[in-house]
Amino acid sequence: MPWLPSLKTETPEEGYALAIKLSRMVVKMTQPDEAARERMRPEYANDAANLTQVSLVVATNFLDCGAG
Amino acid sequence: MPWLPSLKTETPEEGYALAIKLSRMVVKMTQPDEAARERMRPEYANDAANLTQVSLVVATNFLDCGAG
Amino acid sequence: MPWLPSLKTETPEEGYALAIKLSRMVVKMTQPDEAARERMRPEYANDAANLTQVSLVVATNFLDCGAG
Amino acid sequence: MPWLPSLKTETPEEGYALAIKLSRMVVKMTQPDEAARERMRPEYANDAANLTQVSLVVATNFLDCGAG
Amino acid sequence: MPWLPSLKTETPEEGYALAIKLSRMVVKMTQPDEAARERMRPEYANDAANLTQVSLVVATNFLDCGAG
Amino acid sequence: MPWLPSLKTETPEEGYALAIKLSRMVVKMTQPDEAARERMRPEYANDAANLTQVSLVVATNFLDCGAG
Repeated sequence: MPWLPSLKTETPEEGYALAIKLSRMVVKMTQPDEAARERMRPEYANDAANLTQVSLVVATNFLDCGAG
Repeated sequence: MPWLPSLKTETPEEGYALAIKLSRMVVKMTQPDEAARERMRPEYANDAANLTQVSLVVATNFLDCGAG
Repeated sequence: MPWLPSLKTETPEEGYALAIKLSRMVVKMTQPDEAARERMRPEYANDAANLTQVSLVVATNFLDCGAG
Repeated sequence: MPWLPSLKTETPEEGYALAIKLSRMVVKMTQPDEAARERMRPEYANDAANLTQVSLVVATNFLDCGAG
Repeated sequence: MPWLPSLKTETPEEGYALAIKLSRMVVKMTQPDEAARERMRPEYANDAANLTQVSLVVATNFLDCGAG
Repeated sequence: MPWLPSLKTETPEEGYALAIKLSRMVVKMTQPDEAARERMRPEYANDAANLTQVSLVVATNFLDCGAG
């Protein structure tokens, strides 16, 4: 099954969850080494500036798929 | 009840409040540890650069839901 | 009276002023302490990088309300 | 005469010039002190990162007014 | 054959792959020296802040071509 | 002949090239001194964070003109 079968979702919450999934997928594709991603995790999740940017990415992806 | 029952709101102010809610939700989902979020709070709310970026996130989310 | 009665404005300039208002409101809501905001003011208004980002926020909000 | 009489322009180049005007106006409104703006000018125009962000602001404003 | 024959794709996943391709192409065009790009690779793929921005670029390009 | 005769292009690749042209034009207009721009070139083209932002600018401009 494809990881992104559709941009359509049943509910706004599912659309939001899809926006988060889209945001993370490119990180995996750009840095396929899981150990390298784990090393970045503290910086990723404990830095206010980065979390704000993550929120911006999700907001932008939500434009792609938030119409539900 | 779902946390995001709808993207439609009755008034522009409610749409703006929803844009703020959307902006914060991803932070909670990315950093579920409330204590860790509290530790970031001073940086989050007392740094001009971060507040400007928060404003950008809300503006982008408002594109998602601001049409009311 | 609500602070955001409508996203519709009579003229492009009023739409632009509304975009600025939207950009600032989230800062107030995220940092409600006026003294704290005042302490950030020099950084906010005297740093070229921040002013450029403020301009980006207003441009994005103008997408929300600039159609007049 | 208002500084922003219309978002409609005759040609794409005029639309682009208007996008630049919009980008600069908010800087003036946020930092009305011309001397303070002049002090930031070297940082503004000689820093690659800032110029790239200025380009992003103009691109975003061009979405507001680029349709001519 | 052109590197960008079309913005239309058969599936959402192909649209997403195209968004990634678009995001990378400008880097190649701005820095054509492959050795220089290779030197930046560690910073590019091992810095959380940069990966978050890469995700933002792809989200924005997905707006260009994600409708599939 | 105007530097921006039209936002319409024949092919997606031409639209992408135009998006790059738009992204660079504002840099020229903000920093008209060619020598100053040349001094920034190494930072501009050899810094991963800046190249990622350049890609974001082009993606945004592509929204302006990518429909071909």
